[in-house]
Amino acid sequence: MDLKEKIRSVMDYPKEGIDFKDITPVLLDKDAFRQCIDEMSELVEGEIDVVVGTEARGFILGAPLALNIDAGFIPVRKPGKLPSDTASCTYDLEYGTDSLEIHKDAIKKGDRVLIVDDLLATGGTALASAKLIEDLGGEVVGMVFFIELEFLKARDLLQKYNVKSLVKF
Amino acid sequence: MDLKEKIRSVMDYPKEGIDFKDITPVLLDKDAFRQCIDEMSELVEGEIDVVVGTEARGFILGAPLALNIDAGFIPVRKPGKLPSDTASCTYDLEYGTDSLEIHKDAIKKGDRVLIVDDLLATGGTALASAKLIEDLGGEVVGMVFFIELEFLKARDLLQKYNVKSLVKF
Repeated sequence: MDLKEKIRSVMDYPKEGIDFKDITPVLLDKDAFRQCIDEMSELVEGEIDVVVGTEARGFILGAPLALNIDAGFIPVRKPGKLPSDTASCTYDLEYGTDSLEIHKDAIKKGDRVLIVDDLLATGGTALASAKLIEDLGGEVVGMVFFIELEFLKARDLLQKYNVKSLVKF
Repeated sequence: MDLKEKIRSVMDYPKEGIDFKDITPVLLDKDAFRQCIDEMSELVEGEIDVVVGTEARGFILGAPLALNIDAGFIPVRKPGKLPSDTASCTYDLEYGTDSLEIHKDAIKKGDRVLIVDDLLATGGTALASAKLIEDLGGEVVGMVFFIELEFLKARDLLQKYNVKSLVKF
């Protein structure tokens, strides 16, 4: 089926002028959800030790994709949400900054890591996740997204990475 | 393998006196993660149309479990995080209240729904999710948790539901 047609556009969410891409109709349809995970898995190149998914929608696609490609899963979370010793990365938003955290003992030196998220917009979150992984000695082998908003040109920011996406707007 | 041994105890998180059960070592080990999802799936009784997972750790187990049992997935989220028309349920915490939201069009009348989460503590979150599902005409066929904190006696609160858990503390 055409997964692009299953994605719902919600105008003016979370703020005026934004055409939000809502993936919940894809998740709700078991065949669409299965196809989404299978087709994202096919975009993965090389052996992967662990998949990193970013809170919170990145968990919904990253966790099943990890199992699908026989890898472990590491959650990257908002500050204060991970219980053990964490590393942190602060990154710029349109207004202000935000931070992401990862468990320091989640990455072993030389681990081959895949970053998975539902949406590639400006690429700021993906770049922050990549820095967290690399600072802990992991290798970011690739990044796979369900949706890419091409007009935001995230690939300029992420040009040193192997970036793949399934559906482009 | 013994999944209980893979769960990490973090003392005094998120506040003093709490022995937090950290599932991230289970997720990180691909064989443990696969075993966790397979064994949770075996606890499911009857046909399930959709799995409901609660933000955020409920996404990490609920989404792969949904695919494993050939069901769709519905995220239940914190207020303001779902883009389309939502139903809301407010529930009591130790101090104050919290709310959860679901997309109104996610549940069809008569849908057979399974609630999945990583942890059964007091049961407040699970009960709130069940109310959201039932108010929209769905049937809560069961609830499956990875970890149950038995001393918190959530089963008293959830006695009308078919509650299963894989690991008990």
